[in-house]
Amino acid sequence: MKDVAARAGVGLKTVSRVVNGEPGVTPDTERRVQEAIESLGFRRNDSARVLRKGRTASIGLVLEDLADPFYGPLSRAVEEVARAHGALLINGSSAEDPEREQELALALCARRVDGLIVIPAGHDHRYLEPEIKAGVATVFVDRPPGRIDADVVLSDSFGGARAGVAHLIAHGHRRVAFIGDQPRIHTAVERLRGYRAAMADAGLEVDDAWVALGPTAPERVQEAVRGVLSGPEPVTAIFAGNNRVTVTAVRVLAGHDRRVALVGFDDIELADLLGITVIAQDAATLGRTAAERLFRRLDGANDEPAQVALETVLIPRGSGEIPPSG
Amino acid sequence: MKDVAARAGVGLKTVSRVVNGEPGVTPDTERRVQEAIESLGFRRNDSARVLRKGRTASIGLVLEDLADPFYGPLSRAVEEVARAHGALLINGSSAEDPEREQELALALCARRVDGLIVIPAGHDHRYLEPEIKAGVATVFVDRPPGRIDADVVLSDSFGGARAGVAHLIAHGHRRVAFIGDQPRIHTAVERLRGYRAAMADAGLEVDDAWVALGPTAPERVQEAVRGVLSGPEPVTAIFAGNNRVTVTAVRVLAGHDRRVALVGFDDIELADLLGITVIAQDAATLGRTAAERLFRRLDGANDEPAQVALETVLIPRGSGEIPPSG
Repeated sequence: MKDVAARAGVGLKTVSRVVNGEPGVTPDTERRVQEAIESLGFRRNDSARVLRKGRTASIGLVLEDLADPFYGPLSRAVEEVARAHGALLINGSSAEDPEREQELALALCARRVDGLIVIPAGHDHRYLEPEIKAGVATVFVDRPPGRIDADVVLSDSFGGARAGVAHLIAHGHRRVAFIGDQPRIHTAVERLRGYRAAMADAGLEVDDAWVALGPTAPERVQEAVRGVLSGPEPVTAIFAGNNRVTVTAVRVLAGHDRRVALVGFDDIELADLLGITVIAQDAATLGRTAAERLFRRLDGANDEPAQVALETVLIPRGSGEIPPSG
Repeated sequence: MKDVAARAGVGLKTVSRVVNGEPGVTPDTERRVQEAIESLGFRRNDSARVLRKGRTASIGLVLEDLADPFYGPLSRAVEEVARAHGALLINGSSAEDPEREQELALALCARRVDGLIVIPAGHDHRYLEPEIKAGVATVFVDRPPGRIDADVVLSDSFGGARAGVAHLIAHGHRRVAFIGDQPRIHTAVERLRGYRAAMADAGLEVDDAWVALGPTAPERVQEAVRGVLSGPEPVTAIFAGNNRVTVTAVRVLAGHDRRVALVGFDDIELADLLGITVIAQDAATLGRTAAERLFRRLDGANDEPAQVALETVLIPRGSGEIPPSG
């Protein structure tokens, strides 16, 4: 509190008034005190105090989309690790909005989480530096952080997409489309890079008309799938960049007159019964690995931040083994 | 703080020391002060103070299972309403454990949420009474609360199950099984009641061997499905009590030699392509309705707590229209 008073240029009593919400402080002074508190990481001291008093420890998880089934097993795995450490898990979603991500991550810090796991929506995470310095362990998962150095646990998106596209090429396809998520999303770009690498490995040129990145809303994906299936040289195979794309692609292909091969990144519930070939990433292991790293940090591990990339697995079920037609 | 001091039988300075984590307080005194704080709902005053200072408002959502896709659209709908009101949504999961539910709900209150939406795991919510009295708006969703009076938004589980089973009976079935979730879960019991009502409506007796309630783990459901399909008088149709049961039932039936009709409670992604007839509840509308009630309360609405039951919809897609065989 002394540091806060010194930094804000006020007396101890004034700081106490602001902290305790007592009257008699001008708005300008209150703002100065609050800023001093923020910049000194006072919230963290607060949290240490809470822990000392034996209240429940907690960690925060910033998700990207609450309704994407990919994050279900990931969240549950994080929760299981947290529980094994006697900590509560508190979630929130950025809805793929960088501002929302920041607001939520800082709100969780203000609510005294001991650590944060973030699936980043944005590309600049310097806003977390004061929190990390103040002791909030932070691990990124699914996508790397931007402009800060921190632990990150990913799937090998590049390698997985490359293997999936190579699988289609091995089944005779020469005209293969890539339909993926928005180009500002790291995994979308990595998977596109994997697609291009597999095509280049086989000496195949990529026609720009075969590549479609954008939002995964059903209407956009529908249009993209129809696009690569039409024209004078339609593709004979599609690589779908994630589970949202695959679900819509399967629906469009079910109503299409020609059989078109499909490999999707991410496994999907009931894909086994529908015979959908996928590159599966292990969402639960992603979550578990990230959470275990976080608790190692909370237990005092002090080594350099590291990146872990988990292997993906090709699961052939029929749709990726359809030969070229037409 | 005066009330806390009076209740704890200590001076104001001692309360201040405890609140600010300063030294010079015996553990026993600290405990007395903490208890006084808890019982006086001091946390809530604290929260009001936070709001006055213009920090972000937030609401908490206590889910049942982070990995159940049913809760995805529900959570997202709650989040959208919260966002429209300028509030953050913070989630957590009880993992169907009443103690965990209580711990999480109180931890969210301690972290100063302005309101709570709870999918209850337990049957006694009197632990929330002090919070509700202290001004934490609370709405239950998907299942009713126990032993307290509060707003609740549900689907019509009884009516939905009754309609689904009547649909099977209308297609000629006389031996219909019900495979559902654990009997301590409200929706499981209501859906079983709907099944029994439909059978009684048609003058059909229920053989105890046709009814199986229990955890929705794949192994248990597999065994239950195999059970009702074996014996001298196997069923010709199955009503699945929720999406977890349906997914496993579909897998078992896909490998079965006889065609068996199936209607499932809850819609499932890709059920359209697999031709699965369902009783769909609208998870997004459940979440949205609950969140809107919550914000009405936060805006000062003071009417008696009410129960809202949302209609379900039968979606025939093939599996529920298979005639009896064997």
